[in-house]
Amino acid sequence: MGYVVSKTYSATEDHYGCLSANIPALELMALYVAAAMHDYDHPGRTNAFLVATSAPQAVLYNDRSVLENHHAASGWNLFMSQPEYNFLVNLDHAEFKRFRFLVIEAILATDLKKHFDFLSAFNSKVNEDIGPGIDWSNENDRLLVCQMCIKLADINGPAKCKDLHLQWTEGIVNEFYEQGDEESSLGLPTSPFMDRSAPQLAKLQESFITHIVGPLCSSYNSAGLMPGRWVEGAQGEEEEEEEEEVGARDSDDNEEDEDMTEEDTSDSSEASRKGGGKKRRKIYCQITQHLLENHEMWKKVMEEEQEKHSAEEPTREPILAITEEEEEGAKEERGGEGEGSRGSGTTEAQEPCTH
Amino acid sequence: MGYVVSKTYSATEDHYGCLSANIPALELMALYVAAAMHDYDHPGRTNAFLVATSAPQAVLYNDRSVLENHHAASGWNLFMSQPEYNFLVNLDHAEFKRFRFLVIEAILATDLKKHFDFLSAFNSKVNEDIGPGIDWSNENDRLLVCQMCIKLADINGPAKCKDLHLQWTEGIVNEFYEQGDEESSLGLPTSPFMDRSAPQLAKLQESFITHIVGPLCSSYNSAGLMPGRWVEGAQGEEEEEEEEEVGARDSDDNEEDEDMTEEDTSDSSEASRKGGGKKRRKIYCQITQHLLENHEMWKKVMEEEQEKHSAEEPTREPILAITEEEEEGAKEERGGEGEGSRGSGTTEAQEPCTH
Repeated sequence: MGYVVSKTYSATEDHYGCLSANIPALELMALYVAAAMHDYDHPGRTNAFLVATSAPQAVLYNDRSVLENHHAASGWNLFMSQPEYNFLVNLDHAEFKRFRFLVIEAILATDLKKHFDFLSAFNSKVNEDIGPGIDWSNENDRLLVCQMCIKLADINGPAKCKDLHLQWTEGIVNEFYEQGDEESSLGLPTSPFMDRSAPQLAKLQESFITHIVGPLCSSYNSAGLMPGRWVEGAQGEEEEEEEEEVGARDSDDNEEDEDMTEEDTSDSSEASRKGGGKKRRKIYCQITQHLLENHEMWKKVMEEEQEKHSAEEPTREPILAITEEEEEGAKEERGGEGEGSRGSGTTEAQEPCTH
Repeated sequence: MGYVVSKTYSATEDHYGCLSANIPALELMALYVAAAMHDYDHPGRTNAFLVATSAPQAVLYNDRSVLENHHAASGWNLFMSQPEYNFLVNLDHAEFKRFRFLVIEAILATDLKKHFDFLSAFNSKVNEDIGPGIDWSNENDRLLVCQMCIKLADINGPAKCKDLHLQWTEGIVNEFYEQGDEESSLGLPTSPFMDRSAPQLAKLQESFITHIVGPLCSSYNSAGLMPGRWVEGAQGEEEEEEEEEVGARDSDDNEEDEDMTEEDTSDSSEASRKGGGKKRRKIYCQITQHLLENHEMWKKVMEEEQEKHSAEEPTREPILAITEEEEEGAKEERGGEGEGSRGSGTTEAQEPCTH
């Protein structure tokens, strides 16, 4: 459970955490269509693989956002291939142009190679201390929010309930192993996490949550965009210990929360935007909750594997030092590709499963 | 003729104005190959036209740098289509990857939609007062220089001697008129400068030099990159009146030059990088000279047309006020497309014609 601290919303706004209420219908529709198109005709290989093997798609797109360009272009091509597919017939010319622009921008934003650029642009906008907050009247601000939203939807596997997250994990590693097999048959080095003879599921997901999904959720949450339900009444106190944050902040740092003694869950119209010492509201967010639980689960699995490994083979196979270069490579692989390209394929960031 | 004022070179460096002596051979080769590929398979229509008509290339490239992506991709596709076309067979894997990257970056830099981004990035680097200058040991700096170089080569028609410039002007307007005809037949509004029944050659070129080519040359010159020959002896004085600058500075502002009384054309090893009051060398640059002459020529043509128009039809057709919107549109058209896409098609910026 978290306190509402956002420049984008005041704690009493009904629109808190409700993106759809803050953007025009055309932009919302573009976001849903982009979500539907964003992995269309995916070949089950990463951008890095297509580039490394000089695949026709990589040559066609000059090694730049190869898959994302292909998803958008082939999605639009399908749309235009039959008159009866034209569900946009009621848009006028200007609306159509803007709609097309927004869909393309959203799909291309799912290239994880640009992840940290989006994150830092968004953070500098919503930063509690120095950011100006989101200006909903500015179409560039709204576009950036939509790009963050589809990014989160794209990689929200670890933010789903455990069962679904495990299904998505199985899906991605099977795809990875197929690529690993092909790399092997082509005489190429096997990419990190793609060797089926040396599965590293827990490490893959723990690292993905720590470096990619956690900071993204944290950033999205900072703007007050993470959907959740208001916690009414005074039951918040007991549950405070659960509070933890993955990613941007130290997960053990609960100082801010411990300082809070006053709570206000009513619809006070004088609530401050800053919150420090003022009346604040609490919100329960399922996405954050799932992410924390899944993160804890993978950390435990890693610990258990480590213990098992130490017990079984105390001297035979010492832990190999991972060179900086290999670590860099693994990070790039995740950052450039990894689950991002086949994330969860839905916009469920706004509608988490209710496990 | 201009004084050498550059943070990138000191006035006595032999490498002044010689890009090829300052970058590795691989980068120079990439630049030449990019120049050869950069307009490959051009359909004779602008990006704006392809996007407006939902041409297959525009759909394929999601309306982004449509032609530039096509030139690069189809150029590379041709290269890879036959083993005997492989003139890069002696490059190792890493060299090939870097070469390919550089060629693509250079070709995509010729999209005039990104003109002002490149210009401002470069200006903030070479600015006499606050820029750090070009660091030739930094590969990002060298890439930016190469991108500026190919941009200049792409649109150097107005920097050629008059006869060649007129030939290129004829070429571009003929292509424009064909597009205008097609726009008309499709029921689309005719793009600025593309209506063959209302030719505006002088205005097109004068505006192109003032807003695009002039500032680009000026910026390139600020880094000391513009090729030229040292002026030896003291003959500089008489020619000083010729000095004028198009673009960034007011063309009538010769104050700086008038302040200069001391000249040094010898190989003094103590020459200052800043130059103010110190020994300085003069350089004669044919590109700048041609640009100034062509700019003057088009301005005269415009004046003559204006006079002729006033004399012939003093009252019948008053000069129509150009609305801000129309001006914006025309600028965008030039900035986004125009001559840029079919500029001069050569790297002659480094080797101007000797008329």
